[in-house]
Order: sequence, then structure tokens, then C-alpha cells
Amino acid sequence: MEPSSGSRDAGPAVTSVAAVLPAGGSGERLGGATPKQFCAVQGRPLVSYTVRAMERISWISDIIVVVSPENIETMKSIVEKYGHKKVTIVKGGITRHRSIFNGLKVFAENEFSNCLLQKPEVVIIHDAVRPFVEEDILSRVVMAAKDQGAAGAIRPLVSTVIASAADGCLDHSLERARYRASEMPQAFLFDIIYEAYQQCTDYDLDYGTECLHLALKYCKTNAKLVEGTADLWKVTYKRDLYAAESIVKDNLSQQVCVIADVKEAVAQVGFLLHESLKSQIKVEAVSVSLSKNDGHLQNIFSGQCYNFVCVNDKKCAIQETQHLVDVLEKSNIPLLYPVVLVLVHMDISENASFSIGMEELSRIKKFAREVKKQNILVYGLVIQCK
Amino acid sequence: MEPSSGSRDAGPAVTSVAAVLPAGGSGERLGGATPKQFCAVQGRPLVSYTVRAMERISWISDIIVVVSPENIETMKSIVEKYGHKKVTIVKGGITRHRSIFNGLKVFAENEFSNCLLQKPEVVIIHDAVRPFVEEDILSRVVMAAKDQGAAGAIRPLVSTVIASAADGCLDHSLERARYRASEMPQAFLFDIIYEAYQQCTDYDLDYGTECLHLALKYCKTNAKLVEGTADLWKVTYKRDLYAAESIVKDNLSQQVCVIADVKEAVAQVGFLLHESLKSQIKVEAVSVSLSKNDGHLQNIFSGQCYNFVCVNDKKCAIQETQHLVDVLEKSNIPLLYPVVLVLVHMDISENASFSIGMEELSRIKKFAREVKKQNILVYGLVIQCK
Repeated sequence: MEPSSGSRDAGPAVTSVAAVLPAGGSGERLGGATPKQFCAVQGRPLVSYTVRAMERISWISDIIVVVSPENIETMKSIVEKYGHKKVTIVKGGITRHRSIFNGLKVFAENEFSNCLLQKPEVVIIHDAVRPFVEEDILSRVVMAAKDQGAAGAIRPLVSTVIASAADGCLDHSLERARYRASEMPQAFLFDIIYEAYQQCTDYDLDYGTECLHLALKYCKTNAKLVEGTADLWKVTYKRDLYAAESIVKDNLSQQVCVIADVKEAVAQVGFLLHESLKSQIKVEAVSVSLSKNDGHLQNIFSGQCYNFVCVNDKKCAIQETQHLVDVLEKSNIPLLYPVVLVLVHMDISENASFSIGMEELSRIKKFAREVKKQNILVYGLVIQCK
Repeated sequence: MEPSSGSRDAGPAVTSVAAVLPAGGSGERLGGATPKQFCAVQGRPLVSYTVRAMERISWISDIIVVVSPENIETMKSIVEKYGHKKVTIVKGGITRHRSIFNGLKVFAENEFSNCLLQKPEVVIIHDAVRPFVEEDILSRVVMAAKDQGAAGAIRPLVSTVIASAADGCLDHSLERARYRASEMPQAFLFDIIYEAYQQCTDYDLDYGTECLHLALKYCKTNAKLVEGTADLWKVTYKRDLYAAESIVKDNLSQQVCVIADVKEAVAQVGFLLHESLKSQIKVEAVSVSLSKNDGHLQNIFSGQCYNFVCVNDKKCAIQETQHLVDVLEKSNIPLLYPVVLVLVHMDISENASFSIGMEELSRIKKFAREVKKQNILVYGLVIQCK
């Protein structure tokens, strides 16, 4: 899915939507000193992946990240370092529900007046430690919430759930097929979830865990349950960090962006390349004049793509590519990961010759040496077709 | 924990214990063609790790691996390749419960008369896809089963569990603190679980998932619930394979076995090395004359240790080490992973000299070149202390 596109049914696009990400957890189950949302995955904090997954969706206007007081500075520096644009940082409470409530207050109370934001029609609540959320499920819970007042993603249970008696023995086990695990994202009409939080008791705020339950209890809203994919899982234990690391690596290596000039012959090469690659890897094909459309390129970069094939037939192939390098640099991506850039130069001029080809290759070689310092790896291919 | 030792309270040691591993699943949730129990983790099928985790526990006599008919040959070749000694392979049924029942029949019915095994007092049931099970939890469920008739490992719920109404909306959510996830291993007095399976209906066999439930329903046995560690998790999705891979790698790189001669001075060096390393990595220290105690060494190898530091002051250091290499080769371990062997030769003789030290080093170098072909990487250190 193209990162900047709306959902398939364009529904959420006409609704104002914001997101609240509780990120106040202490990560005690992880067994480390760093709360899991701040643990590095391929050098980047987990929360930044989740923020980006939200941020690249055009119809989500604001992202409220709620962190515990001692992590506000950390979160600020993450927002700055990774160039997050839609984030407002809010101080969390001592429990999950209190943190979410604080996040919602940003849209409703003067207490936070220096940053009072436009109240959205629908608010998404999503965990900071579920980084692989896709636009499809977000769109589906938002649409269902608009219809029904509340909605949440669910998954089949992996283990049987049992109740224990006071003596530590089995009391009864639940029939697995009748129950589901409640996951994130969830979405609510803002007025419903805010009303529920305003009414709920201190006991709810201190010991509750389930937003859908609050909407049911205080607003008589039976949430719509939406089957989610396995990607929604929550990073809870150390092994989940390992898994996240491998998934990020996989995504990095399996995604390629083909950039071809708009000129017909070249665009055609880009199209063919796209077709032949796409059965094996995730390919995004773009026909674009590199000198324009920076916004479009920026969107591609934020879509977690770090491998590029640039096809062109320009005399000044390197100037064109230099422009791509500049945009890449501005995006800060090469700070994080090596970017691979395969430069395919098609020479279709009448006077193409071996020595002209070699000259072009050595120019590419020199260019590659220069940009290597910036963590951009350039490979060149010159094709002469008379 | 030393692999060959009994449990802390030596309880299971005086009970006859066998294990049944259902390994008949199709792995559809993994999204791959290979059932997850046969997926390679660092080149070795997952089920082999689980079998080994059981096999290294001295008080488990037999391990019944139940596989679907089409995987019997695969499982046979795994048993042979990885040298599993306690395994009996049994043909599974079409559901989990039917497979476990088949596994239990090996101890009780003449149908399987060509391999009728000694009926154990207690039987462990454990998933083939939970490879990181430790002796401690196995010992605890076996002891509890001996007391109570049945016992099972449990874990806190990671997500809230909800019940949905017929219209796909939330009916109610369960209070998370009152429920637990039922995990594996579980253990039963053989007669109880076998009785339960004999009595249970076709509906139970076809749609049930929980052995503890059968023991309760048909034998009025309320299983003891034993809190397990996070290691008990089940490899279910592709991300779990990633996690398993990383955990195995971590274990490989973080475990060192220090082997020192029994002679006082050398044993002392081994002890000091052990002390200074153990805050950072998992170290097993052994004082042993390498020419004897092969059984003891074999136990260490089966304990997933592939890094060795051998300290000695013998003139014939290399012959000693050659012996270790022979034992390693017999164990088939270097087939699977590179084994790192650091050879510390302490020369405490009066006539130690620079040239004698250099001679020793070049002998070690030659030795290292030879064993490298066998996937054993030798590093040498000669210390002369006059």
C-alpha cells in the first residue's frame, strides 16, 4: 500500500482521527533496565517505529505519546532525531488507564491549554510496543468505531485460559473457541471514550486494563470486534525484541523502490523491472523526475524503504542521482541504515561507445566513493543500446 | 544446573517418568509449508531442541514423539542425525488429543506390542514446539503430579480475554488477574490421564485442547497449577522462529565450559577463570583429567555448550586436547556449529624460555590448522611462569 494513500474505502479520510499511544510502561517483564518502548531495534527505539507506522497514514492528524515523567526528555530527543512531525508528548499517570486519560485530556481540557489540540471525531488507542500495525487494520477499527462508538482488534487465543481456585488448583478451563484475546489498535468516538474515563472510578483507573470494558460499563457501548493479523502482537518479553529485530531486518532487505524517469522508454524499463522483481520482494515502482516531487520521495523514505534502483538515460545521470542523495540525507535515513542505490544508466545515443561507457562508469565510481562516507552505497550499471 | 543431576529435591529421581511430545501439528499459523516443529533453527529442526531438552534430564526414561504419518521418516532421520537415544516415534491421530492418546498407548496396549514400553508412574506431556523447557519446571510439575494426580505450568495472561456476542460485538471481558494461560509442560499420574483418555468422548478427542480439563472431567482430579517462566512459550508464528533463532545463538555464544586438570595449581586457575567470567556469561567449570570421564564430558556437550577453555600444564598438552577433539567429534556437535576451543598452556617448568614457548605455540598452530577442517577453531595461549 502506498504510504500516503487513504484507506481503500476512503472512509477515515472524511473523519478527523487522532491517536493516543500509551508508552509509560516500565518494561519489568522484559527483565532489562530500559523500558521496552525505548529499547533499540536495529539502532532505533521501538516507539519510533510505532510512531512512524501511524505518522505515515495521511488521515491521522495528531499522535499523542504518553510517557512517564522521567522519560519525557528521552521521548523529546527521539521525536527530534527521527523527525517525527505529528507527535505531542504528554506526561503519563501511574497506571495505563491514567496515562490514556491524560492523553485524551489534550483534546478537551484547559489544563493542557498551551497545546490544546483540535478534538477529533475518532480517537485510536494503540500500544507504543506494537510497531507493526498496518493501515488496513487501523482503517477498519476507525470505520467500525464511527459506526458503533467503539471497536477493537482481536486475535484467536494461543493458549487455553484457565481459572484457578484459592488452593492454586484448576477450577475450570474456558472453551478456547468461545474467547478471543483483546489486542490493539482500538478506536472510539472521542466523546464516548472521554465520557467513560470521566465517569470511571479510581478502582477502574488503578486496576483496569481494558478500554473496551470502560466504554461498555459507562457508555453502554458494545464495541465491534475486528479480527486482526498476527502482526499486531505486543513486544512483551526479550524474545519479542529479538523477533522485532529480525522482522525489521527482513523488511529492510526485502523492499526495493524503483525510480524511473517519466520519459516513456525509461518508464517502461522501470515497469518491467518492477514486474519481474515483485514476485520475490516488496517493490515500489515510481516514475518520477528526480528534480521535482520531493514530497513524494519523502513519503517513500518514510515507508521504510532503503534500497533504490534508479533508471535513467540522462547525460547528467550523476547530477540527478546527487539530488536523490540530497533528499536521502535530509531525511536522516542514512544515519540509521546503509542505503543501497543501484544506478542504471541507459545510453541510447547514436555515438555510444565502449570508451564513453567506461568514462561514465568511472564517474559513477568516483561518485560512489564520495557518498559512501554518508552511508550510501552506490552500485553502477551502464547499458548501451544502439 | 548440571545436566546430569536430578532435581533439587531429588523427588523425580525415585519416580519412573516418561514424556509424550505431540508433534503432529501442521503449522498453518506459521504461514509456511514446513510444520513448525520441523523448521530449522540454526540449521537444526526445532523438535530436536525440545527432544534434547528432555533427553539431557537423567530421570526421564522414555520420550515418545508423536508425528503425523507423512512425517515419520523425517522424524526418524532427525533421531538418527542428532543421535537422540531415548526416542520412540509414534504415529499421530488427526487431532492433538488423538495424538497424545496414541502416545500414551505405547505404554499400555498390545496394539503397539513390538515396542511396548515400561509403564511410567508419571507421564509428562509437552509440546514439541516449546524447546526452551528447563529441568526445574519439569521437576516441579512431576512432583506436583505425583502428589495431586495432575499438574500444569501456567503463565500470566499477556492480553485481556474477551467473549464476543453472536453479532461480533463485545459481550464481556474477563478480569485479567483472575485467569491464567495454561502452558506446557503438564504431568499426570499415568493411570489418571490414561483413564481420562479412555473415557472421553469423540467430541472431546476432536475439539478439546486441554489435558488438564480431561483429568478434571473424567477423573475428578483438580490439577495443581505451577507458575512457569517466560521460556515456556510456544513457537506459533514466524516471529517466534526468529526469536528461537536468536535465543539459540545467544546461548551458543554466551556459554563457556572451563576444563582444568585436577592438579591443584591448574584447578585453581580454572576456578579463578570461572569466577571472573561468570558475572558476564554462563560458565560451567569442570576439573577433570581429559583422559577419563568421557561420560561427564558427553553430558557437558549435550548441555548446549560449544565454547571451551582448556587449562593444563602438561608437556603433552596437545595429546590431551586431541582427546577432547575426539570426544567432540564423536558427539557430532562440530557438524552443527563451529566449536571454539581456547587452549591455555601453563609452562611452570624451571627451564621455560622464549624459544620453548614459541615452539609450543607453533605446535598449537599446526594442530589448529588440522582441526579447523572439522569445524573446531583452536586458539592457543602459552603462559610461562617461572
